[in-house]
Amino acid sequence: MTFKLLIVFALIVAPTLIAPLTAQNAERDADAAYIRKIYNQSLTDGRCYPWLEYLSLQIGHRLSGSTGAEKAVIWTEAMLDTLGLDSVWLQPVMVPRWVRGEAEQVRVAGAANKADNFSLHALALGGSVSTPAKGLQAEVVEVNSWEALDQLGERNLRGKIVFYNRPMDPTRIRTFEAYGGAVDQRVYGASRAAKYGAVGVLVRSMGLRLDDYPHTGTLRYDSAFTLIPAAAISTNDAERLSALLEKGKPVQIFMKMNCQTLPDVQSYNVIGEIRGWEKPGDIILVGGHLDSWDVGHGAHDDGAGCVQSMDVLRNLRRLGYQPRHTIRCVLFMNEENGLRGGTEYAKEAKRKNEFHLCAIESDAGGFTPRGFSFDGDDAVFGRFFEKVETYEPLLEPYGLSITRGGSGADIGPLKGMKGLLSGYSPDSQRYFDVHHTAADVFDTVNKRELELGAASMTALVYLLDKYGL
Amino acid sequence: MTFKLLIVFALIVAPTLIAPLTAQNAERDADAAYIRKIYNQSLTDGRCYPWLEYLSLQIGHRLSGSTGAEKAVIWTEAMLDTLGLDSVWLQPVMVPRWVRGEAEQVRVAGAANKADNFSLHALALGGSVSTPAKGLQAEVVEVNSWEALDQLGERNLRGKIVFYNRPMDPTRIRTFEAYGGAVDQRVYGASRAAKYGAVGVLVRSMGLRLDDYPHTGTLRYDSAFTLIPAAAISTNDAERLSALLEKGKPVQIFMKMNCQTLPDVQSYNVIGEIRGWEKPGDIILVGGHLDSWDVGHGAHDDGAGCVQSMDVLRNLRRLGYQPRHTIRCVLFMNEENGLRGGTEYAKEAKRKNEFHLCAIESDAGGFTPRGFSFDGDDAVFGRFFEKVETYEPLLEPYGLSITRGGSGADIGPLKGMKGLLSGYSPDSQRYFDVHHTAADVFDTVNKRELELGAASMTALVYLLDKYGL
Repeated sequence: MTFKLLIVFALIVAPTLIAPLTAQNAERDADAAYIRKIYNQSLTDGRCYPWLEYLSLQIGHRLSGSTGAEKAVIWTEAMLDTLGLDSVWLQPVMVPRWVRGEAEQVRVAGAANKADNFSLHALALGGSVSTPAKGLQAEVVEVNSWEALDQLGERNLRGKIVFYNRPMDPTRIRTFEAYGGAVDQRVYGASRAAKYGAVGVLVRSMGLRLDDYPHTGTLRYDSAFTLIPAAAISTNDAERLSALLEKGKPVQIFMKMNCQTLPDVQSYNVIGEIRGWEKPGDIILVGGHLDSWDVGHGAHDDGAGCVQSMDVLRNLRRLGYQPRHTIRCVLFMNEENGLRGGTEYAKEAKRKNEFHLCAIESDAGGFTPRGFSFDGDDAVFGRFFEKVETYEPLLEPYGLSITRGGSGADIGPLKGMKGLLSGYSPDSQRYFDVHHTAADVFDTVNKRELELGAASMTALVYLLDKYGL
Repeated sequence: MTFKLLIVFALIVAPTLIAPLTAQNAERDADAAYIRKIYNQSLTDGRCYPWLEYLSLQIGHRLSGSTGAEKAVIWTEAMLDTLGLDSVWLQPVMVPRWVRGEAEQVRVAGAANKADNFSLHALALGGSVSTPAKGLQAEVVEVNSWEALDQLGERNLRGKIVFYNRPMDPTRIRTFEAYGGAVDQRVYGASRAAKYGAVGVLVRSMGLRLDDYPHTGTLRYDSAFTLIPAAAISTNDAERLSALLEKGKPVQIFMKMNCQTLPDVQSYNVIGEIRGWEKPGDIILVGGHLDSWDVGHGAHDDGAGCVQSMDVLRNLRRLGYQPRHTIRCVLFMNEENGLRGGTEYAKEAKRKNEFHLCAIESDAGGFTPRGFSFDGDDAVFGRFFEKVETYEPLLEPYGLSITRGGSGADIGPLKGMKGLLSGYSPDSQRYFDVHHTAADVFDTVNKRELELGAASMTALVYLLDKYGL
């Protein structure tokens, strides 16, 4: 700025700015003090950790339609009932019921060198059909891209087992991007192989670490093609199988799985809320998904998000906070293999014409908070995002940043309804070490990290409630 | 900005700014691309993780003067020798040798209710004297502040065991601040109790988690008072002992430790460097400390910092980078109980009149990177810090921020020498779960997190080397 401009600014522009700035600063100081109180509450009196312990060790995994899921519905409703909320209820939703059956068998078969006939650590993909009762055996063909699959075509793939082995990219700093760049193999691999006459599919597990844990997860069949069985194998076994294939000789795989899809089952989203005193029809939602895969404890995915969301309401109650808007905790059922809970929730919200000012989902693990990413309908997003960006100085002391990006699967169906969507973003480095595996257990969750997440979500809810959109 | 000011800006000021900005942008793009290469190298071809595995599992803990420390010197020198550096050498330094002896015994004794006579998980503090050979037994007095200690005074403390039980503050977001607010009890507690005639000291472990791991660590005796034995007890046992004392009846503690301080031992700092082509006399140092406590593996503290520092040199070599300044990796000996390595290093640097442009220490665990904090001599710090602050936009995509703050114990003695000091700052939430305990083992270190740290340090070295100060 030149000297003359400086004079103009000092004499004419600045005085008109100072008075409102002072009032704004006092407001910001009050907000900073309240957010400090929220963190103190969460770090010294939070309940999310013992809740997660119970959910993990007493109930365990809880795939949609299982007894675990049923118990989790009953228990989380009972816990919400203890918090002195204005309402707690169950929202009915029919969910698919897929069962794994006996442990999968996947092994190299018929190799001349007997040491090469090793067993692979495998888990059927969720929704997969079974193999024939006696299992199936076929030559395996490794494929590292869709282009390679298409080039091989029916001539090379008919009657074969396709082995998708494109790894997650370790150079992506955000591991969810690495996941996004590889998970298409798991989701679409079976039908795209069946299109060329393949009889089975193995997929390298969606993990960055080399270990023995297979990662399950959902697949989507295209009903235009035969439904063929598909399983994930551990990254170590993917490397081993690939090395064996590199020798150039045909390799046979035997696989046996007896998973099946049973009729739909009655289940529920679990919901609790504190009614807003000023605008009870405007809702700020915090949530996670109550179902998990049928291995491990579903501790990070997504027990963590559930207990954090429950603790947001408890934190507000313990602080005696009276919200202007309705603050609602939703534990969605069936995120993993159907999204029925999220779909049903949005349908009813639309029917009741509820306005969701903001929906926040925690479904990226219970790790150290890094921030929140925001998404929303194009018609309103720009203006809303500008507003929440102004919160950043208040959240930055807690290691949080505000970014544009994805939110959460369960709240996705609310997108068209002109509110803001947000995904809670913890540190992502360890998430895909445990995601959808038997290793996703309570012991891998750190108490402080979990509590910091609950505090961060509570702080965001406080700011959204105070300032609206 | 008013419309008139905008016109003035657009016509007069802006054009003079545009040309240099364009050149600057091209430079920044080149830097961003090089930093991307550094991360790719580290995440796909880093050696820090297998190095840490060897250091942890084949060598293990390595307290100064121990055979573990001796082996670590030999092995890290050999590893540096494989990197094609310009020089690798050992810098001699005499170090203290304290030995723990047999496992400590600490228990409640003589309670009427036999169930109250429980054993406590304890570790003698580093440097502590032993108890009498038969152990000592005395009444225990809990103290939660220095003021309380002084008020109790000699009348209440003579012949007693003082139990310091002020916990780390869980509401501090940065756990190192919580540590800083409590560790005075461990460091000074023995002599301040001995001043009032106490015969022994128990200290609540420096950890935020409730568990059974005692945390050792150094104490400092004031030679004006009797040297009395001191041990850390686990946080669970601290809670249990405190609950017992709350019943109001006198509690006796029996403690037996036979640790001792032996004569000093010859040891070494391990050093390797790539000579700068332009200013070989100006040094950018990366380092950690090679010694550890005598429990666990010293994996996070500070095996991680050592292997990351070694990998900085390897990354630069693998990328074919030719540094302007000398890049030196220093693995300091004896940070934990004497700082002899850091002291000796600075003394020789002063004698040789070496200028350390910047010294970076990694000694806060091998967790996900959050940034670097900077410190330095007042005479130069402000100007230097302004310069490194401009790096932030290049480091921010990797989750790194640039802050003012502490650096590292080993590089502290360089502070007067007019260079910049920096501490690598990973996420701190889990560090005090393992710090100075048997739980600080290789399995608690995540490969990606460790590699990201090595990459972050390499990126900072690159920027410092390119732009100087």
